Amino acid sequence: MTGEDDLVGRIRSAAAADRDGVLVGIGDDCAVLEPTPGMRLIATTDLLIEDVHFRRRYADAADVGWKAVAVNISDIASMGARARWALVALACPAGTTPEEIEAFYGGALALAREHGVAVVGGDTSSSPGGWFVNVTVLGEATRTLLRSTARPGDVVAVTGTLGRSAAGLAVLQRDPTTIAVDPDTLSDVTTAHLRPRPRAVEGGWLGTSDGVTAMMDLSDGLATDVRRLCTESGVGATIALDTLPIAAATRRVAVAIDHDVLGWATGGGEDYELLVVSASEPFERLADGPAKATGTALTRIGTIERGTSVRFVDERGDAVDVVRGFEHFVTGR
Amino acid sequence: MTGEDDLVGRIRSAAAADRDGVLVGIGDDCAVLEPTPGMRLIATTDLLIEDVHFRRRYADAADVGWKAVAVNISDIASMGARARWALVALACPAGTTPEEIEAFYGGALALAREHGVAVVGGDTSSSPGGWFVNVTVLGEATRTLLRSTARPGDVVAVTGTLGRSAAGLAVLQRDPTTIAVDPDTLSDVTTAHLRPRPRAVEGGWLGTSDGVTAMMDLSDGLATDVRRLCTESGVGATIALDTLPIAAATRRVAVAIDHDVLGWATGGGEDYELLVVSASEPFERLADGPAKATGTALTRIGTIERGTSVRFVDERGDAVDVVRGFEHFVTGR
Repeated sequence: MTGEDDLVGRIRSAAAADRDGVLVGIGDDCAVLEPTPGMRLIATTDLLIEDVHFRRRYADAADVGWKAVAVNISDIASMGARARWALVALACPAGTTPEEIEAFYGGALALAREHGVAVVGGDTSSSPGGWFVNVTVLGEATRTLLRSTARPGDVVAVTGTLGRSAAGLAVLQRDPTTIAVDPDTLSDVTTAHLRPRPRAVEGGWLGTSDGVTAMMDLSDGLATDVRRLCTESGVGATIALDTLPIAAATRRVAVAIDHDVLGWATGGGEDYELLVVSASEPFERLADGPAKATGTALTRIGTIERGTSVRFVDERGDAVDVVRGFEHFVTGR
Repeated sequence: MTGEDDLVGRIRSAAAADRDGVLVGIGDDCAVLEPTPGMRLIATTDLLIEDVHFRRRYADAADVGWKAVAVNISDIASMGARARWALVALACPAGTTPEEIEAFYGGALALAREHGVAVVGGDTSSSPGGWFVNVTVLGEATRTLLRSTARPGDVVAVTGTLGRSAAGLAVLQRDPTTIAVDPDTLSDVTTAHLRPRPRAVEGGWLGTSDGVTAMMDLSDGLATDVRRLCTESGVGATIALDTLPIAAATRRVAVAIDHDVLGWATGGGEDYELLVVSASEPFERLADGPAKATGTALTRIGTIERGTSVRFVDERGDAVDVVRGFEHFVTGR
């Protein structure tokens, strides 16, 4: 047996407990899965690349494995579907220890198990550069919520709060002892960045609820992602900046490091909250559902409009120029 | 729209013709697929990494895309299943042109279409290193052929010929004008290396045939892969070196560059032929099937044995020490 075979054997043992719908897991050429008859199959894949998506200086191997699975489960949840199976591929430099690789898969398995997802396959390779991760997650649903079906007059809402992951990244990039906030606050925002919790239960609830017309997850920041949803749907939107939900911890960090908190909320990305579009009338009932089931708030932040213009407005209703991308927020005319 | 969105739009247009079982393809958070009720789902993922699995000096972007899909379809075929959908992720350096990225996806789509596989998703990213590719392919089958079910007394066979890809790699690593063989021969072996054709039809035929007891594809070389199959099945094997099928082109290249052709056949890897284990009695009928349907020979090369020893024997029946790995072939006592 080669070293790779030994390693695959250990990962296989760690993953062996997850057998829901799995006829053959890690160890053969492919996984053999038993989809539920009559269900649609949902598939997504995401790259996580060292020094593009994360830095090993602050993200340990288990964090990377966790997040790589989390971002894919978030994609599945954003279709209103249930994640079931994952394939986890890792390339890392020759000097990486087997313990680090096991820690990576340990992080991936921990998040997968939290969501009832079985890790059924993958690949490992050496990398001539840094860490390269690719995860594919497969899910099931009876119906799916798309980006392309928002209609003028619909309500735009988000789960949870915005900007927490960007606040966490800002903390991770600094010496935390120089930031005048309590350790729990720092931990709150850095955990949101390193170990995001995808809105799987909320997505499943919304996916089976009448009234939701479109959904996606917030991975690249509200401003970019609202525009993507509007482009796919052929509509515009007005987003009221003063209604954006922002956690107290996020605000405290913004004050402590003198950063514009709205910049994080609109441009920060990686919150993995759900962007939910709903018919206007049933919205209140919808907002109650996830809150009662999971404690997660669903906050109205705007309205879908005719046309193709996406406007961010301040508390006076004046348009504000939200420049997309991290730490670019400019008040316009 | 960002540059990434533009690029995704062009890839999406190129992939849009492939709609078999695809309810939602590229452009949303996930693909939505319609599996055939009652079928098992087969899933596999493979990394292809620059300077580990290929070099851009001799593999152009379209070759890389083609091969990344081909090696995954080969995994699906090796289970006796039918490939249906692919997710194709690419990270490449900042200087890569949009034309190169489109050529990569063009190569992926060309091979996918040849096999009726729809490209339904993926991801693109910049890479701080070289090219990193991950492809996931999903397939379907009513039953699957595993590595773990070979039985003592079974026949061991392979499709096609062995060592052609290794011969091609040897040519690509040299100045071809220094190799005294005709251009068609050079092209035959280099094409086998750069644009392998997975044995999809043969795998599907064998997957539905009685008598086949185990199967896998040959990606890491016959010596390594026979041992893997035997380990999974808890058996041994005897492989007769003088029966290994080797193409005339492969032999001509070996003579021209003075290389041991058996080293390529046992250790070269990347042939993506099928390693087929069958009950002894129905083997002749099995061998006729793929030959009549596809023109692909199925050649008997050995026997599954009790125990765990995998022996390679010469024409006198004497054991030969086949050292695994490329260009390591040592005649033993």
